[in-house]
Amino acid sequence: MDQDRSAPFRRFGEDYRWEGVSHLPYKEDATTPFKSVTRQVLFHEPDMGCELRYFEVSAGGYSTLERHEHAHAVLILRGRGEAMVGGEVRAVDTNDLVSIGPWAWHQFRASRGEPLGFLCMVNALRDKPQLPTADQMAELRAVPAVAAFLERTGEG
Amino acid sequence: MDQDRSAPFRRFGEDYRWEGVSHLPYKEDATTPFKSVTRQVLFHEPDMGCELRYFEVSAGGYSTLERHEHAHAVLILRGRGEAMVGGEVRAVDTNDLVSIGPWAWHQFRASRGEPLGFLCMVNALRDKPQLPTADQMAELRAVPAVAAFLERTGEG
Repeated sequence: MDQDRSAPFRRFGEDYRWEGVSHLPYKEDATTPFKSVTRQVLFHEPDMGCELRYFEVSAGGYSTLERHEHAHAVLILRGRGEAMVGGEVRAVDTNDLVSIGPWAWHQFRASRGEPLGFLCMVNALRDKPQLPTADQMAELRAVPAVAAFLERTGEG
Repeated sequence: MDQDRSAPFRRFGEDYRWEGVSHLPYKEDATTPFKSVTRQVLFHEPDMGCELRYFEVSAGGYSTLERHEHAHAVLILRGRGEAMVGGEVRAVDTNDLVSIGPWAWHQFRASRGEPLGFLCMVNALRDKPQLPTADQMAELRAVPAVAAFLERTGEG
């Protein structure tokens, strides 16, 4: 059945939006664990084992710090920022690759004065993310580079 | 087992090559059905249902015209060119999306004076591509836009 498939050609448009792709800002308030993140599902095909999504974090924003069994395969598509994977912090630039293995804590931060946009390939069937408990958070913060990373917004 | 996983961070380098990723030029002669194509497998993780590859076609080159049961999900990462999917021909530019469904004949051509580089998401388990028979080739060429596309190199 082809009826659920994407059209063969979909154009890239202004401000990193694509023709025929819904743009989903994540609703946030003071309690949400992310800031200034939008999501666009670029490919979700009935006969493929994975999806390809595009996430964008505005300058100063960050994705949720989380972990899960499923892996992420990430390519930075726009701008630059920083990423933390399993306690390791790195500056990331356009076209860099980030591999997030099962159960690795991870977060992306647009902490370098630019938006940070990235492609994320993920299994179509996947488990729900876990947020860190207070104890796990303390353990992550015990690594000085991670503690500093978690405070950085790139502002001021 | 994490031993087969990619390192968490791999940097983008000069000329669209990545740290820790093999660069595979396709060996060609007068009989090969492609011209000036290289392949880099960016993500091939043991626990993911798909791979993410980067193909690059030098200016004037083209990928193999083929079809198969498995689908391709493509994002143009570098430059511009043209693509044919299931008899439909379109100019494609950086960040455009191309969905190639099961059994759709497809080809990419760097026919606009620039290299054409694209990401291709594909199931890890997949069938072997088929090349067109002489009859199938005649059927494709019966569409004038396809016939013209098949001749274009962007040179002269």
